[in-house]
Amino acid sequence: MTTPLFNTLSLIGLGLIGSSIARKAKQQGLAGQVIGYDQDDETRIIARDLKLVDHVTDRLSQASKADLVILCTPLSSYFSVVATLAPELKPGTILSDVGSVKNQLGIEDLLPEGIVFIPAHPLAGTEHSGPHAGFAELFENRWCLITAQESPQRDQVAAFWRRLGSTVAFESSSHHDRVMAITSHLPHLIAFAIVGTADQLEDDVREEIIRYAASGFRSFTRIAGSDPTMWRDVFLRNKAPLLEIIDRFIQDLTRLHTAIDEQDGDFLYDLILRTRKIRRDVIRDDPTGTPYDGI
Amino acid sequence: MTTPLFNTLSLIGLGLIGSSIARKAKQQGLAGQVIGYDQDDETRIIARDLKLVDHVTDRLSQASKADLVILCTPLSSYFSVVATLAPELKPGTILSDVGSVKNQLGIEDLLPEGIVFIPAHPLAGTEHSGPHAGFAELFENRWCLITAQESPQRDQVAAFWRRLGSTVAFESSSHHDRVMAITSHLPHLIAFAIVGTADQLEDDVREEIIRYAASGFRSFTRIAGSDPTMWRDVFLRNKAPLLEIIDRFIQDLTRLHTAIDEQDGDFLYDLILRTRKIRRDVIRDDPTGTPYDGI
Repeated sequence: MTTPLFNTLSLIGLGLIGSSIARKAKQQGLAGQVIGYDQDDETRIIARDLKLVDHVTDRLSQASKADLVILCTPLSSYFSVVATLAPELKPGTILSDVGSVKNQLGIEDLLPEGIVFIPAHPLAGTEHSGPHAGFAELFENRWCLITAQESPQRDQVAAFWRRLGSTVAFESSSHHDRVMAITSHLPHLIAFAIVGTADQLEDDVREEIIRYAASGFRSFTRIAGSDPTMWRDVFLRNKAPLLEIIDRFIQDLTRLHTAIDEQDGDFLYDLILRTRKIRRDVIRDDPTGTPYDGI
Repeated sequence: MTTPLFNTLSLIGLGLIGSSIARKAKQQGLAGQVIGYDQDDETRIIARDLKLVDHVTDRLSQASKADLVILCTPLSSYFSVVATLAPELKPGTILSDVGSVKNQLGIEDLLPEGIVFIPAHPLAGTEHSGPHAGFAELFENRWCLITAQESPQRDQVAAFWRRLGSTVAFESSSHHDRVMAITSHLPHLIAFAIVGTADQLEDDVREEIIRYAASGFRSFTRIAGSDPTMWRDVFLRNKAPLLEIIDRFIQDLTRLHTAIDEQDGDFLYDLILRTRKIRRDVIRDDPTGTPYDGI
């Protein structure tokens, strides 16, 4: 326990991310009190049972009275949540979020004078969702990208995320969205697509796919187990960068199709050799230092 | 140490798979003696240093005098290796392999009377290669698929793999190749493709992709770190099933592109929900029982 950074912290949404912030914030005493809002009855019951926060509510107006309010709901709810919250926020409140898309959210337009929006995106998550799935260590040694201009409020949010265990970096929102389109959104989309493709095959093949999933496919099913609402929203919101990278990827895959069809071994060999180098760079740059993790 | 299953075991190729078989076979005393062939000078030096086998050789003729000879080399070398080995094999020798493609290898045509080929495929591997990368536990709780008709020799090879720690199943070679095309070969191809796509982006984006790889992309780079020769050969050899499944996958991905473009949230949501169910089936059926493994 150290000095609280905020008198009151309010978490809008108590799923995987919201409940993980709650756990760590309580554990570390990062706020004098923590308020948790969720629209879902069951989530609120679980939150009370687990004592995730000091005060659980189903009213946004009650959750608005805080120094730091963090949106931890799917992107598609942002507009209605912020429209309801905005008139209730007290001057000086910092509004932040944890969403995977940062560009053109249109939130600033809804905010009254004196309320600053500091968008943040912790690069952390699992394929599980809901208040049970969270844990205090989720953000440890993970990046948290903040896409706001320099300001005292940005410093406060950055300090908060560092206390949650993250390494903070600053990015422009458009750059953020392009990079995430390839590092996160396309991989997830591909995982959903390949698992969906497998699902459409004949029953006997489908059964064996599940039985023999270990060799590569298993990693895809893990990613493909993620939350439907969250990912639907991410794909819809990051439309332009994502469509561009899907196009490129389909082109590259089509080129590989041709190489296999024409039995062009050199092309395949050169590609695989090139990707090996990137793998080495990724391992070298990984702040989590995760060692070899099997196939 | 228990009763050896074979007087002499010969491993053709001492890379990840060959050296792992060697380690476990020696540890468990599965053969009276183990011979290891490799064409690569450095691999032989390492194999001697590590005492992987009882006798290291660079001559196929020396490696042919065994009761069980297992090909552990890339698929593209099969023809020349077997053409050289075949006249030297003594009657009663069982020839086997560990390759990822089973159909139309054309090996039987090269073999003299009295030599039976029992194709096997352990669903085990890591993205590392070479004699250093092997370990005795690699096959534990992993499937080993055998694509031979019933015979006493098939029973012997099955018994051998069970002693290596694997769960043995029998498949037809054509079925094997179709299932592997989607569970293993397409995922690997996709991983090489997406890492290749990322590699072609502008320098500043590329740098950040490597830095922020944690969110999904990292799993792809792991797969994409695999051995170039092995995977080139797999893609070339499993041509028909792989091209078919790439076609289907590109169609499905194109459908997703359209859904994002047209902001069709229901389509995306339904797909993600469906893939979740498969994820649960995969976890339930997994003999390795690997628990949650993070993103």
